[in-house]
Amino acid sequence: MADTLAALRSLMASHSPLDALVIPSEDYHQSEYVSSRDKRREFVSRFTGSAGLALVTMNEALLWTDGRYFLQATKELSDQWKLMRIGEDPAVDVWMADNLPKDGTIGIDPWCVSVDTAQRWERAFAPKQQKLVQTSTNLVDEVWTNRPPAEINPVIIHPLEFAGSSVAEKLKDLREKLTHENARGIIITTLDEVAWLYNIRGSDVSYCPVVHAFAIVTLKSAFLYVDKRKISSEVKSYFEENGIDYREYGAVSSDVVLLASDQLDPLSAVEATQSKHSEIKLTGNGKTEAEENNKNLIWVDPGSCCYALYSKLNPDKVHLQQSPLALAKALKNPVELEGLRNAHIRDGAAVVQYLVWLDKQMQEIYGAPGYFLNGEGANKKNQLEVKLTEVTASDKLEGFRASKKHFRGLSFPTISSVGPNAAIIHYSPYAENCAEFSVDKIYLFDSGAQYLDGTTDITRTVHFGKPSAHEKACYTAVLKGHIALGSVRFPNGNNGHALDILARVPLWKYGLDYRHGTGHGIGSYLNVHEGPHLISFRPRNVPLQASMTVTDEPGYYEDGNFGIRLENVLVVNEADTKFNFGDKGYLSFEHITWAPYQRKLIDMSLLTPEEIDWLNNYHSKCKDILAPYMDENEMAWLKKAAEPVSV
Amino acid sequence: MADTLAALRSLMASHSPLDALVIPSEDYHQSEYVSSRDKRREFVSRFTGSAGLALVTMNEALLWTDGRYFLQATKELSDQWKLMRIGEDPAVDVWMADNLPKDGTIGIDPWCVSVDTAQRWERAFAPKQQKLVQTSTNLVDEVWTNRPPAEINPVIIHPLEFAGSSVAEKLKDLREKLTHENARGIIITTLDEVAWLYNIRGSDVSYCPVVHAFAIVTLKSAFLYVDKRKISSEVKSYFEENGIDYREYGAVSSDVVLLASDQLDPLSAVEATQSKHSEIKLTGNGKTEAEENNKNLIWVDPGSCCYALYSKLNPDKVHLQQSPLALAKALKNPVELEGLRNAHIRDGAAVVQYLVWLDKQMQEIYGAPGYFLNGEGANKKNQLEVKLTEVTASDKLEGFRASKKHFRGLSFPTISSVGPNAAIIHYSPYAENCAEFSVDKIYLFDSGAQYLDGTTDITRTVHFGKPSAHEKACYTAVLKGHIALGSVRFPNGNNGHALDILARVPLWKYGLDYRHGTGHGIGSYLNVHEGPHLISFRPRNVPLQASMTVTDEPGYYEDGNFGIRLENVLVVNEADTKFNFGDKGYLSFEHITWAPYQRKLIDMSLLTPEEIDWLNNYHSKCKDILAPYMDENEMAWLKKAAEPVSV
Repeated sequence: MADTLAALRSLMASHSPLDALVIPSEDYHQSEYVSSRDKRREFVSRFTGSAGLALVTMNEALLWTDGRYFLQATKELSDQWKLMRIGEDPAVDVWMADNLPKDGTIGIDPWCVSVDTAQRWERAFAPKQQKLVQTSTNLVDEVWTNRPPAEINPVIIHPLEFAGSSVAEKLKDLREKLTHENARGIIITTLDEVAWLYNIRGSDVSYCPVVHAFAIVTLKSAFLYVDKRKISSEVKSYFEENGIDYREYGAVSSDVVLLASDQLDPLSAVEATQSKHSEIKLTGNGKTEAEENNKNLIWVDPGSCCYALYSKLNPDKVHLQQSPLALAKALKNPVELEGLRNAHIRDGAAVVQYLVWLDKQMQEIYGAPGYFLNGEGANKKNQLEVKLTEVTASDKLEGFRASKKHFRGLSFPTISSVGPNAAIIHYSPYAENCAEFSVDKIYLFDSGAQYLDGTTDITRTVHFGKPSAHEKACYTAVLKGHIALGSVRFPNGNNGHALDILARVPLWKYGLDYRHGTGHGIGSYLNVHEGPHLISFRPRNVPLQASMTVTDEPGYYEDGNFGIRLENVLVVNEADTKFNFGDKGYLSFEHITWAPYQRKLIDMSLLTPEEIDWLNNYHSKCKDILAPYMDENEMAWLKKAAEPVSV
Repeated sequence: MADTLAALRSLMASHSPLDALVIPSEDYHQSEYVSSRDKRREFVSRFTGSAGLALVTMNEALLWTDGRYFLQATKELSDQWKLMRIGEDPAVDVWMADNLPKDGTIGIDPWCVSVDTAQRWERAFAPKQQKLVQTSTNLVDEVWTNRPPAEINPVIIHPLEFAGSSVAEKLKDLREKLTHENARGIIITTLDEVAWLYNIRGSDVSYCPVVHAFAIVTLKSAFLYVDKRKISSEVKSYFEENGIDYREYGAVSSDVVLLASDQLDPLSAVEATQSKHSEIKLTGNGKTEAEENNKNLIWVDPGSCCYALYSKLNPDKVHLQQSPLALAKALKNPVELEGLRNAHIRDGAAVVQYLVWLDKQMQEIYGAPGYFLNGEGANKKNQLEVKLTEVTASDKLEGFRASKKHFRGLSFPTISSVGPNAAIIHYSPYAENCAEFSVDKIYLFDSGAQYLDGTTDITRTVHFGKPSAHEKACYTAVLKGHIALGSVRFPNGNNGHALDILARVPLWKYGLDYRHGTGHGIGSYLNVHEGPHLISFRPRNVPLQASMTVTDEPGYYEDGNFGIRLENVLVVNEADTKFNFGDKGYLSFEHITWAPYQRKLIDMSLLTPEEIDWLNNYHSKCKDILAPYMDENEMAWLKKAAEPVSV
């Protein structure tokens, strides 16, 4: 690694020279999960967390990451590196502005930095005349000798029976939005937006069924930029049928230049004449009609589009706004909704089968009272010395899921956490050093899968021994928040920020809270985290709308002790309210996740009659809906878990 | 009135000429309530509503007002006027920009328009090179022959036993804030801020115990601009003791000019030398040290300061931000809090005495079953033909209040409304045409008073016959929201916008809602509506803090039928939570309003055990706290009203 830094610095010196080089975690598409050949920051720093940014100067190496990863980064970084704690230490742009010399140069690979980020940094650098330098190659790639090769995974057609809307329909809708904003084209860089628009899927990135690709859509044409080796003859025909002009991945660069000068679309002879004619038709202001009408903008999403492509455009002709595909993708069509409902039933069945299996293991291996009984438990292992660990357990869970129809893999690394590990919100167990199950400790698992008909995400928290009164009080408060949010009705126009408080009030009563948002959108056989909406204490002004999906996942975490989280996926529906004050239309949530809450962890005296009704109703449906997937033993367990509580 | 418009237009023509003249509702201090001589918009248009803006062009006369007043404006405006409905018709600045000629001139009295408003209009006018012209006199005043004379009401000292904090303490705190923002002075134009800062009160405006005055505070001096005829010798001494330099009201204009050039404070000889010295001490950038440190700003609140005074300043040397007195005034000191608690006890006693009296009247005059019984009632008048109307009733309520210690008047026009009138949120009854009480109609009263030790505001809704199941369901939903908000605990950092939803969720369940905010701050013998915080569906990022006051007043209004609102005043306190997650400190509300909720209007089956506990606890305290003010008969009534409900 010392060699890596030395090699990098040597490149930096020979470059401009550069006073600093920024190495972010993101790939060319600003993805949340990246492929192994795109883990440049991890390669340089050896820090493996999902979020972070490395900065290399001629005599320092610094790594910024957030509170989830302070401990892990301390362990993984060598003493050549300095950990910068986000929220405590100065932010990276502030640090660079303050510590790098006047007129200093900061190198970035403009393909890995978004427009928003680059522009924010440029503003920070202005007072000291520091400059952001776009390197022509990625300097890390140059020193990364064993860099994994480019993946050549096939592009898969996502059939209409799952997609529910054709490419033609999606393009029509997109072009209407372009026209509305006076744009003649859009550059699409987000992988799930490309996959959604063209109804294709792939396996280039772990957990996300996407293809490494860009897209450009104009009012007339639709382009896809992808490694052509990934295209089978069947897919080739599919592209031709759908009018998708596919080109090499690298060609996006020169095509954006053509797009900027309006030369990307091949013009017919008639159009060429008309175009010429209109160019000389000047208005009173000495501008062409097209300019006057401003109909020549290129739509770019500043939060996701890389600075490299944006830099090829005339900034005065760019429409900087969130991609219209974000909302279009979030509003699921009826086929997608039906698929999501079905996928969640199969997924719920896997979760219940896992719970039945876990319950048996805990009793047999550790002499635990089990899921239903409340005794102290022997806490003794059987003579076989079989161990149940966070990893062996989550492997079993994956197995139950893998046996289900349409399974295509996990949707994110399973969080399988015992006791204190459950307090680490983004905990990921490793086989070498993960924790063993224990009769007297809470177990939290947050997991999900990719099915052809939908993506899933569920969290349950269980105890196989005797939970403490405090653990029960906390679990009950989390459950009350989960129910309050999940059963609310609200008028159109409200965003997730307004609703967020409902999940927290029962915790606040005791002076408890959690340091994460309460809900995120979820894809239809796409990314497990999807915008543009959010349920969070952080404001984001995107109203919730009918046919969106969103999770409901409050929690409570006690460092070094235990963690609790409960998560269902919800679908936003029009509510059938008795009245419709203000004619706004009211919305409600439909829970599509199916797995019981553990009654042993609930202090029933703290629930209202309405909450008990909700719980009984949910459990009763759970039992009926999952029944077809249960064997006799599992069904007996589920019936017991779903037994109604008397009010 | 035709003469008024003709006279105005003649003045407009001879002025610049002006293409339009704006006549807003506000006085020189952007007050919510104005004195009769400041009701210029009412004089010109004859429209008496509290909110509205008149615009006179050479051939049109338009009046903008909001939904509360559409009906009233239609009745009051002559056919020379056109009603512009806010929310439906174009906004006033949009209308002016669109309908007035290119290069047109729009006249304003810059004393009656805030900096924010004037700047927003100037931006709207820019595309067509239209100009905002500040008239040197108010043209309405010139044509208003019978304009009421200036009030000469005495300035009253608000003693420390009620104010709780001395002028010296308040000035010290204010100057610290000025220094922190590199300001050397502040212009204070809001009447309640002037009154609060100098611990003075007056009676220049109905319902608000304020004095028509401006203030300027520099790091060394404190000025008050007021009609000197209002100053008694006692007050004169008080000003001298407190270092308050009082000058004629009109002198503020020339003093702001002096302030701009830093010549308002008389300099000592030593200071003059130092000042000269520092002026020639140039820094590297060729600026004086003072300029470099930016220590020469003047603080102006853009939302309340008039454009006239702002225009006398160098815009580069102005610190445009909400006045620091807004928050300082909102954070009540212990003496003010104690006063508010006491004032609300006396006020609650008056309300209960009113309810007892009303109950008796309704039974005697109308043969009503009364406050407690649920029968149909005879609905017949006695032979005396006595009528109980919205106005005769509210006069009686004022009488009960007036009999209480420290009473100084009402804090706003009493909303006393029967049946359909209760659905008009800002209804104000007039003796000539107000409604009569009825056994089968809901009665809503929203009222408050000014006491030397605090300002009050309470709403209760009652029924003396047999409420319908629908009325009960609505009352219960409003009550549930009122309790949910009023009993929440929440961590520091949350604003009223985040909490607002709690009061609405029980109504949303049925598809019901209300079109107003949920809570406002309240003054300490000052304005009944006080910022800077708010509980509303509209975002306003001012976190609630311990020792603020805020109302809790959800409602439900069914046009042409009935209205329901319940309102208590709350004090924000530090909460004694079991835990303190995140070390943020948690807050809760203390109800300081005391009057029972009518059990007959509550559908008990819809309340949770927690809500019933809350109700029983509140009623029990109500009974104990008000007991000292009740006679035997009243006490018997209150005991019955406060009887516990079994869970």
